[in-house]
Amino acid sequence: MKESKTAPLTLPSDVPEETGGPVFALERFLARQLLAFTGNAPIALILWNGEEIVTNPHHIVAHLHIRDRGALWKLCLNPDLNFGDLYSIGRVDVEGDFLRFLETVYTGVSNTPPPAPLKKLRRFLNRPRTNTLDDSRGNIQHHYDLGNDFYELWLDNEAMQYTCAYYPEPNMTLEQAQRAKMDHVCRKLQLKPGDQVVEAGCGWGGLARHMARHYGVNVTSYNISHEQIRYARAKTKEQGLDSRVTYVEDDYRNIDGKYDVFVSIGMLELVGRNNYRELGRVANNCLKETGRGLIHSIGRNKAELMNAWIEKRIFPGAYPPSLSEMMEIFEPYRFSVQDVENIRLHYARTLAHWLERFEKNAHQIEKTYDRAFVRAWRLYLAGSIAAFTTASLQLFQVVFTRERNNNLPSSRAHIYK
Amino acid sequence: MKESKTAPLTLPSDVPEETGGPVFALERFLARQLLAFTGNAPIALILWNGEEIVTNPHHIVAHLHIRDRGALWKLCLNPDLNFGDLYSIGRVDVEGDFLRFLETVYTGVSNTPPPAPLKKLRRFLNRPRTNTLDDSRGNIQHHYDLGNDFYELWLDNEAMQYTCAYYPEPNMTLEQAQRAKMDHVCRKLQLKPGDQVVEAGCGWGGLARHMARHYGVNVTSYNISHEQIRYARAKTKEQGLDSRVTYVEDDYRNIDGKYDVFVSIGMLELVGRNNYRELGRVANNCLKETGRGLIHSIGRNKAELMNAWIEKRIFPGAYPPSLSEMMEIFEPYRFSVQDVENIRLHYARTLAHWLERFEKNAHQIEKTYDRAFVRAWRLYLAGSIAAFTTASLQLFQVVFTRERNNNLPSSRAHIYK
Repeated sequence: MKESKTAPLTLPSDVPEETGGPVFALERFLARQLLAFTGNAPIALILWNGEEIVTNPHHIVAHLHIRDRGALWKLCLNPDLNFGDLYSIGRVDVEGDFLRFLETVYTGVSNTPPPAPLKKLRRFLNRPRTNTLDDSRGNIQHHYDLGNDFYELWLDNEAMQYTCAYYPEPNMTLEQAQRAKMDHVCRKLQLKPGDQVVEAGCGWGGLARHMARHYGVNVTSYNISHEQIRYARAKTKEQGLDSRVTYVEDDYRNIDGKYDVFVSIGMLELVGRNNYRELGRVANNCLKETGRGLIHSIGRNKAELMNAWIEKRIFPGAYPPSLSEMMEIFEPYRFSVQDVENIRLHYARTLAHWLERFEKNAHQIEKTYDRAFVRAWRLYLAGSIAAFTTASLQLFQVVFTRERNNNLPSSRAHIYK
Repeated sequence: MKESKTAPLTLPSDVPEETGGPVFALERFLARQLLAFTGNAPIALILWNGEEIVTNPHHIVAHLHIRDRGALWKLCLNPDLNFGDLYSIGRVDVEGDFLRFLETVYTGVSNTPPPAPLKKLRRFLNRPRTNTLDDSRGNIQHHYDLGNDFYELWLDNEAMQYTCAYYPEPNMTLEQAQRAKMDHVCRKLQLKPGDQVVEAGCGWGGLARHMARHYGVNVTSYNISHEQIRYARAKTKEQGLDSRVTYVEDDYRNIDGKYDVFVSIGMLELVGRNNYRELGRVANNCLKETGRGLIHSIGRNKAELMNAWIEKRIFPGAYPPSLSEMMEIFEPYRFSVQDVENIRLHYARTLAHWLERFEKNAHQIEKTYDRAFVRAWRLYLAGSIAAFTTASLQLFQVVFTRERNNNLPSSRAHIYK
């Protein structure tokens, strides 16, 4: 491989060595098309022969190395999907501020609508998986059963919350912010001792334990990740909370019983659009007349498909809804939406904390998995920060009650006391 | 007219005297159908010959007098529309707790879906008017140009707010609650001195003056009601605020210029569903990059037509949207919804304050207008209380920003300080 003009980057060992050869005129054209797709972002493409392609030379943010001919063609065919794979195995690489590169590209792409036929093609190539009961199990195990040890390396060490934290004070630690998030949710739900709470999707069970310990409620939490349930049960027993918290290894669609409170943190973005009405049905069946609920989910300002690579490699079946799409949960059952809060930038901060810890442990993670895994997760975490800072993603917390529940607080001040 | 078994009610003088005559079997059947339509609410129908029809005798809430044969037929043909007219002119009347009667009927009707063909017929009979620029002027003048004197008799006497007040402390007076509402809106919008604010639909201009006086901002307010603009200008001059508040007698669709803040209180429910995208376009055109906006509107848990009588007699063209319908304002322009608050029960309280003052002045209002006018407004105010207490209507405040505005508060605590 010919050296690029910029400092060489070490490549993972599994990259094919056939990366040399001349750059043809058509490939130069394709490289320019690729930059046009990013709204001519101030990015320098460095091709496999060291040639630099720039369409916007002002304040170049980063150099994107394209290590071989095949990588360029793949990027052009389906950039949304293939960038992640090529980056993971090192056939493309970024030199410069990775986060600024990602933010620049996200902003450029979202400001530059692709031509309609290309849009249709992308939509077809990138259509999300469906989530039947069986699919869901597979999709969730794909992600969450990677091993609790892996997540322990970079999530908060108190409650293992793999969802957006809440930083009412900007310089909070990750642990403080995850605690603040749980309290924020509990206050919004006006938990009172003795309440029966059902949780759809409980991760490693941190919120359930927090609710039981600090708010005196009984929690039944559903999750289909065997690894997480196992961890949650052990932790709960260890903390002496097992008389008040029950973990059920089952799908949210099988929730039964009657509850005062329905809560779901960071599950909706994984249930898939075609299941919103079903989720509403579940809440409708299980909530008592004075019941209240909260759904916390990644969302969008406007309906759009999930990034194809994230959907394929990281979160199969994922789809962050717009608010109008989320309303398909509530409106068919005349649930009354009481409060929606968008805490988008809190997720960027949470992810930055995660990425920092991830990087500290990257060496160890590489030993357990491999280099491509580390690079994939780095891209996923940094790319998610960029998605939140550039507002391609939102984070909505929606509080709802039954239609006829008139036992409502006279203001939201109680959340902030 | 034959006396009913219950205490006689005085009728307005314009009721036809042909109210006697026997009740036929078919009419008895129709009367029962009418009660079935209310989900067999515990209401006693008293027909023109004194005959009582009851389908649910447990804890009768009120007696509904149907004074003549024609009134029964009209009620059966189109109860949504005709009840209001018949009540106004006294051909039907309610004996007992009027509010409880209305709440019982609202609850019963909304729990009892009409058969599908009847639903279609009702939808056809009750389709709302469209709101072209010219229609809007007519529709608005119909209501707001009744005369400022009329509204002064029962609205708050400080700012003449004809929109939902805010009672963070339940025993606030109407004046305190309207002030609290304005401050709540200003805090949500994070007004700072020197901000340029544009207001779509300003009523008698109270919010604009409050913002200018207490938050040091410059306000340009649009309204198409000539009577209100005249009043607002006089009041603003009197208070020495005319250098900072400009009232424009024009439609919100003609707003131009660039602003830091877009605010619209109680206008959306009158603009009509087909104009939401246009309203979004206006906000999109006039908001600066760091701009923020607030829309305060009556809404629904689920899309539904406005009560036909209110739409015909009180608010031509009115339509309270569901949240998913409201999103048609924001999503096409990628506005970022930051905060939605539902203060439904605050409107019931506001209306109760209005009704109380209205009743105190009913005698005087009857002298200016007539008896039917007083009865129509009583029904409208009491009916609206019932609509809010039974959750047939909601009150949403939606705060939004431009997509890329990252200058967001770290929590909503500032609203409650």
